[in-house]
Amino acid sequence: MNTSNRVCALLGIDFPIIQAGMVWCSGWELASAVSNAGGLGILGAGSMYPQVLRDHITKVQAAAPGKPFAVNVPLLYPAVEEHMQSIVDLGVPVVFTSAGNPNTWTSHLKSHGVKVIHVVSSVKFALKAEQAGVDAVVAEGFEAGGHNGREETTTMCLVPAVADACKVPVIAAGGLHDGRSVLAAMMLGAEAAQIGSRFVATPESSAHLAFKEAVVAAGEGATSLELKSVTPVRLLHNDFAKEVIAAQQAGATVEALRELLGRGRAKKGMFEGDLVAGELEIGQVAAMLTSIEPAADVVGRIVAECRSLGGPSLGGRFSF
Amino acid sequence: MNTSNRVCALLGIDFPIIQAGMVWCSGWELASAVSNAGGLGILGAGSMYPQVLRDHITKVQAAAPGKPFAVNVPLLYPAVEEHMQSIVDLGVPVVFTSAGNPNTWTSHLKSHGVKVIHVVSSVKFALKAEQAGVDAVVAEGFEAGGHNGREETTTMCLVPAVADACKVPVIAAGGLHDGRSVLAAMMLGAEAAQIGSRFVATPESSAHLAFKEAVVAAGEGATSLELKSVTPVRLLHNDFAKEVIAAQQAGATVEALRELLGRGRAKKGMFEGDLVAGELEIGQVAAMLTSIEPAADVVGRIVAECRSLGGPSLGGRFSF
Repeated sequence: MNTSNRVCALLGIDFPIIQAGMVWCSGWELASAVSNAGGLGILGAGSMYPQVLRDHITKVQAAAPGKPFAVNVPLLYPAVEEHMQSIVDLGVPVVFTSAGNPNTWTSHLKSHGVKVIHVVSSVKFALKAEQAGVDAVVAEGFEAGGHNGREETTTMCLVPAVADACKVPVIAAGGLHDGRSVLAAMMLGAEAAQIGSRFVATPESSAHLAFKEAVVAAGEGATSLELKSVTPVRLLHNDFAKEVIAAQQAGATVEALRELLGRGRAKKGMFEGDLVAGELEIGQVAAMLTSIEPAADVVGRIVAECRSLGGPSLGGRFSF
Repeated sequence: MNTSNRVCALLGIDFPIIQAGMVWCSGWELASAVSNAGGLGILGAGSMYPQVLRDHITKVQAAAPGKPFAVNVPLLYPAVEEHMQSIVDLGVPVVFTSAGNPNTWTSHLKSHGVKVIHVVSSVKFALKAEQAGVDAVVAEGFEAGGHNGREETTTMCLVPAVADACKVPVIAAGGLHDGRSVLAAMMLGAEAAQIGSRFVATPESSAHLAFKEAVVAAGEGATSLELKSVTPVRLLHNDFAKEVIAAQQAGATVEALRELLGRGRAKKGMFEGDLVAGELEIGQVAAMLTSIEPAADVVGRIVAECRSLGGPSLGGRFSF
C-alpha cells in the first residue's frame, strides 16, 4: 500500500489506478485482475440482478483474496436496496455511487464501515457529495464513456475546479488510458485516475469480443455525447447511434427518443455483440486504443510509463 | 531564449506560453505585453481590416522591439491576400493559420522566411498541415473558445493523439490557463501551451470591459459548443446564445441559423460590450477565472506555478 497518496492510503492500493465500474463490461474477472495488479477493480452493478452481484462479489473475494475492490452502484437503479444489503452483508470495502443523490446512502454505508466515493461531473455536485460525507469524489469529464454531465465540462477543466473546491481527494476520469494522461490528470490536482475504455478492451472484460474489437478499431470522431434530453450518454457511432442522431436533428421529443432507445439496448450491444442495433457506450479515448491488452499489463504499463516520464520526481501523490 | 524546448527554440521565446490570436480581443497592446513578458503575443487578424492589421503590426514592433510575435490569419477571411502581403512586407516572424487549407499559404510564407503554425482539431488535419510543411501545429480541444472541431475531441484526448502522429512540435490549446493545466498539457506531449480565455480577461485585451467582466463572472456550464451545422463555436450563454440554442432545438435549418447569426454579432458582443444581443466567444475555462489580471502577470504567474509544481525536475521541454 502506498501511503504518500491519499487515494492509495484510503483504498489500501499500491497504485492510484482505478478500473471504472461499467455496465456489461466489469465483472469479477476484470475487477480481480485489476485488484491483483495493485490497482482497484470495480464491479459494475448497474447491469446486474441482485443475485448476480452477490455471485460476482464472492468470486472477486476468492480470486483476489484480501485485496481491496469496489462495487459501482448507479443510485437510480431499481434494485439499489438489495445491492446495498449485499454490499454490507458480504463485506465489500468500497462503494462508488453515481447517477443519484449522495445523501441517500452515504451515511448508511459509512456506518457499516464501507468507504463511499461518488461520481460527479460538476463542482456543484462534488460539493454536495462532500457535504454528504463521501471519502472522495470521481470528477468525470465530457470525454468519458457512458453517462455524463449536461455541462459538458472536460477533464482538463473539471478536475482542477473540483480539486480547488473540495477537501476530499479527487479521482479524475475521462480520457485517461496511459501514463501521460494519468500524470496529466494528477498534475491537474487529481490523486488517482479512474480508467474505463482501456479496461473494456481487455480479455478479462465481460464485454462481447465484437464490441472490444469495435472499440479498438474506433478512430477519432467515432463517438459523441447523445440523448442529452433523455440522459446524456457517449455512444460509438454504429447504426443505432446514427438513428438517434438523425431523430434528434429532426426534433424528436423526449418520449420519441425513449421509445427509440427501448429496453435492453446496452446489453444487446456491449454484452451480446450486436454492433448494428445495440447501444455501444465508450469514451473518446477509444480512438487511441489499438489492441486488446490484459488488465494486469494495462496497470503495469501505466505505472512504468508514469515512472519513465519522471512522475516520482514530482514527489508526494506522484510517488508510486 | 529557451533552447531545451523545441517551440521556444523555434519561436525564440523564453517560456512556452503563447497568447491565442482572438477576434476582437488580441490587438497590439495584448500581443506586445505577452511578448515582452517572454511568451509569444499574437495579433488576431480575423477581425481586422488590412490597414488596421498593418497599424497593429507596426505598433507591436514599436512596443516590443526585437521580440518575436505572430499574426493569426483565419484562411477563410476575405482579405487574406492583403493580410499575407502585409505580413511579408512588414517582416512578421511567425504566422498562425486556422480555418482553412494549410497548403494554400504555407510554402509562400516559408519562402519569405516566415514561420508557419497551423491550428487543428484532429489528427487528420494535423497530418495535412505537417505535409504542407508547417513548423508546428496547435492541437485545439473541444473546451476551447471560439471556433472548434466537429469531432469534439477534448484537449486530453487530442494532444497525445496529435503528438503521436506528428514529427513537428505540438502546441496544446483548450482549457489551459494556469501552471497545472500548462504542465498537464505538456505531460500529454505538447511542447507549449496556447492560452486564449485567460488573456481575454486582461487590461491589455481589446475586448470590451463588459465582456471581460462577463468572462470573469461565468460559472460552470456557462458555455457550450453551438451552431454545429453552420460553423461550430463555443458561446457564453447570453440571450443571443439562448436564442440560437432554442432555434436549434426547434430544428432550424442552416439558412435560418445563418440569418439569426447575421453580421457583426461578434464585434457587437466582444468589442462593443452588448452582452444581450452580441456573440460572446469564450472557453470552458472561463469558469475558473476570477479576476482581470495584467498579461505580464499571467505569464509570470504561470511560469512560477510550473516551477513550484516541479516542472523543471521533469527536464527537457519542461526546463523553463
